[in-house]
Amino acid sequence: MATVKLWTDEEVSADARVKAVFDDIRSVRNSDFVNNFWRALANQPALLERTWSSIKEVMIEPGALDPLTKELIYIAVSTMNSCTYCVHSHTAAARAKGLTEQQHAEFLAVVGMAAETNALATALQIPVDSEYLVE
Amino acid sequence: MATVKLWTDEEVSADARVKAVFDDIRSVRNSDFVNNFWRALANQPALLERTWSSIKEVMIEPGALDPLTKELIYIAVSTMNSCTYCVHSHTAAARAKGLTEQQHAEFLAVVGMAAETNALATALQIPVDSEYLVE
Amino acid sequence: MATVKLWTDEEVSADARVKAVFDDIRSVRNSDFVNNFWRALANQPALLERTWSSIKEVMIEPGALDPLTKELIYIAVSTMNSCTYCVHSHTAAARAKGLTEQQHAEFLAVVGMAAETNALATALQIPVDSEYLVE
Amino acid sequence: MATVKLWTDEEVSADARVKAVFDDIRSVRNSDFVNNFWRALANQPALLERTWSSIKEVMIEPGALDPLTKELIYIAVSTMNSCTYCVHSHTAAARAKGLTEQQHAEFLAVVGMAAETNALATALQIPVDSEYLVE
Amino acid sequence: MATVKLWTDEEVSADARVKAVFDDIRSVRNSDFVNNFWRALANQPALLERTWSSIKEVMIEPGALDPLTKELIYIAVSTMNSCTYCVHSHTAAARAKGLTEQQHAEFLAVVGMAAETNALATALQIPVDSEYLVE
Amino acid sequence: MATVKLWTDEEVSADARVKAVFDDIRSVRNSDFVNNFWRALANQPALLERTWSSIKEVMIEPGALDPLTKELIYIAVSTMNSCTYCVHSHTAAARAKGLTEQQHAEFLAVVGMAAETNALATALQIPVDSEYLVE
Repeated sequence: MATVKLWTDEEVSADARVKAVFDDIRSVRNSDFVNNFWRALANQPALLERTWSSIKEVMIEPGALDPLTKELIYIAVSTMNSCTYCVHSHTAAARAKGLTEQQHAEFLAVVGMAAETNALATALQIPVDSEYLVE
Repeated sequence: MATVKLWTDEEVSADARVKAVFDDIRSVRNSDFVNNFWRALANQPALLERTWSSIKEVMIEPGALDPLTKELIYIAVSTMNSCTYCVHSHTAAARAKGLTEQQHAEFLAVVGMAAETNALATALQIPVDSEYLVE
Repeated sequence: MATVKLWTDEEVSADARVKAVFDDIRSVRNSDFVNNFWRALANQPALLERTWSSIKEVMIEPGALDPLTKELIYIAVSTMNSCTYCVHSHTAAARAKGLTEQQHAEFLAVVGMAAETNALATALQIPVDSEYLVE
Repeated sequence: MATVKLWTDEEVSADARVKAVFDDIRSVRNSDFVNNFWRALANQPALLERTWSSIKEVMIEPGALDPLTKELIYIAVSTMNSCTYCVHSHTAAARAKGLTEQQHAEFLAVVGMAAETNALATALQIPVDSEYLVE
Repeated sequence: MATVKLWTDEEVSADARVKAVFDDIRSVRNSDFVNNFWRALANQPALLERTWSSIKEVMIEPGALDPLTKELIYIAVSTMNSCTYCVHSHTAAARAKGLTEQQHAEFLAVVGMAAETNALATALQIPVDSEYLVE
Repeated sequence: MATVKLWTDEEVSADARVKAVFDDIRSVRNSDFVNNFWRALANQPALLERTWSSIKEVMIEPGALDPLTKELIYIAVSTMNSCTYCVHSHTAAARAKGLTEQQHAEFLAVVGMAAETNALATALQIPVDSEYLVE
């Protein structure tokens, strides 16, 4: 029920530009499964290429934050944006990267607590303490 | 310019219930500095007590997620809620807990990428892949 | 599965005040189809009348912005509000007003880019350049 | 009062990687003015390069949507995200691209109307009409 | 620092259409003070007229909800939208309509609790109980 | 389709800590029905206990705001967070507490109006009148 067509593997195979991205997704992830997000973006090859390139750079290449921490940040953002697709796909990704039930429970507690105190700080319009400002 | 009065240390000292929470904040944090968030909540003692109790349980007691990861999740939520106070206070807290510039840079990249793909998934109304659903 | 009843054509016909609005919707749009949004608002005649009157003034009467541009702005807002109904109905409306796949692709790229840079600007709490301020 | 340092022109000149991006910004925009957004991102060269590259591709290269329409979509997203910096910078950009007061007035009316009907559709949990679904 | 000019009383007096709305605001509220929201909307007379007319109908005319309850709903929405102007103006309005400190404290507790459980329900993607659905 | 398992009554009965909370929910509400929100939180006993304890304190214990007003504030927050589960469950709760169709209609009008004027105030970046600031 997307607002655009979701490309089947057959349609992907018939378009060299889209096929190149899908081949890379399968190769980098070492899995034949390609999720609907990419099948929807296939309608916009330039956006597909740019988004996959950025995802690889940000989420997959090794860096200063471990992969599970990045997924938790991703779910936190997706939760606040009420993005059903993103909450499901990144919770699954976090589990695949080793998220335990105990870690998930603490993550939920932090997200809930942050949402609550955000609402309080905004309703109270609390001024930023000068101690927090970068000079 | 808050919508409520921010309590001074003098006013706190004159109210036993509020003073007990402020004393505990100073003791647990091992610092004399108490930020404006608590000085605003002081107008509502029950809310002050419950919020501080929850913050201690969620953010300070040891658990399955390390303290820096919890702060990054907190900043992610605060960013999506456009909470100026919260972004400032928790970025300062993350730095106090060891956040490096390289980690901050990667955090920003993840938050930005998540916000972008959230918007795409929502505008495209992509259906959740059955592979992501918990049975 | 709405939180209110969706009115059938039969029920609409039996209520003169609601019928008058539905007749005008059909007449202005030159179509017999009336979508669920109006069938839900039918429970609140005053809100129904005021909303339809405003929609006509803002979205249908000729002005300085062309109808397709207005629909794109509408989808952008609806996306950021995670309004499933609104994304679907206004994407359909934009297509009916001539939205091409290439325009849709560019629209998605702009919305995604804006969401990403919004998150960065908020997480960084960037001060507004004085050059941008209206005197 | 950003959460990071804003780079001065002197600091930019001392860093070849950052300087290359700033030189390109000045060249593409044909202006010596570089706004604070880029001065904040300068702390994260990889993010600076990727963001500027995407902005050029999405907002500056000619396409199927005209530049003013893209700015209006950008302001709509920024408004819903309550991004003060982004609303100011893109309203200024829209004016530089020819936005008239009459167009601004209509833009505001559309954004306000969309926000209102989004809230109604969500509070009413209106099911999507089958007529709107892409097959 | 608005993105548009704020009209002075002198400018208002020189424009009959705007003056008529300002006169009505002063008359209905029985006060000479007209806040900045209307001084900004004065740039868009049609939007000014429609917005004031709706505010009168929704917020001022007697109905089934008392005026203070309406203000609390308004602040709740404004808080979730991180609208600084709106939180300030409607908290002031609620106080003018009799909001006590104890009611404000409870309001804050409800808003915070709702924000927290919203985040939990979304992160957990909890399906709606069939008991809640309207037939 | 939650991201976690929803506990059945049989599973609840086998866990003393979870059972104690469920027993209290049934006792306080004087009903055998326990909705999915709590069945999902059952996976995180500490969060379950803390959330139920807070809900009792904030939403159920008598205070300065009547129960129906609290539910309307809850729905307003849930609507702005696009929380489908929360809009449904709290609209049902409000009806159980006596919400009339006329009150619901006015509630919707206020929420819609607030969302619209929030968007206008943010897009216009209107500065807060000094009259609204607490000294």
